[in-house]
Amino acid sequence: MSRKYQAQIYVTLRPSVLDPAGVAVASGLKQLGYESVEGVRIGKYIELSLSAESEADAKTQLDRMCDQLLANPVIENYRFEIAELAASV
Amino acid sequence: MSRKYQAQIYVTLRPSVLDPAGVAVASGLKQLGYESVEGVRIGKYIELSLSAESEADAKTQLDRMCDQLLANPVIENYRFEIAELAASV
Repeated sequence: MSRKYQAQIYVTLRPSVLDPAGVAVASGLKQLGYESVEGVRIGKYIELSLSAESEADAKTQLDRMCDQLLANPVIENYRFEIAELAASV
Repeated sequence: MSRKYQAQIYVTLRPSVLDPAGVAVASGLKQLGYESVEGVRIGKYIELSLSAESEADAKTQLDRMCDQLLANPVIENYRFEIAELAASV
């Protein structure tokens, strides 16, 4: 029996890595008049649905997916939250 | 006196909008052997620090920034969470 899970994955650049896109957005916001902006960092937000035997199994799979494809471990960190959707056969 | 806030902004494609990048990632994961993946949607995750008079002021500014620059309201939804960092003069 497998269960369905919905994961929310956040992939962010490591703090030591420059984020030119974030700098560009911060600059754009200031040009639009938002002088109060102090810093912007841009990452990815991934919603992923999968089936797994258990929550632990889903987390193991997600860790491997993030390391292999979703994030670049050299320059990015990731974290995820997971919730069960509904039981299914 | 202004206060510093840290906002976490999530920009996602509206459910009715096709997400070719998400489809490509789902296909890539399946080719890597993750047959359990059922769907992937990719959005943006933005960390933004700003100064504002109050939390309400910060939320007003963030709403306008999202509408003007950070999200495309035609095809994207956004939501954000906000936390005060520290009081400053």
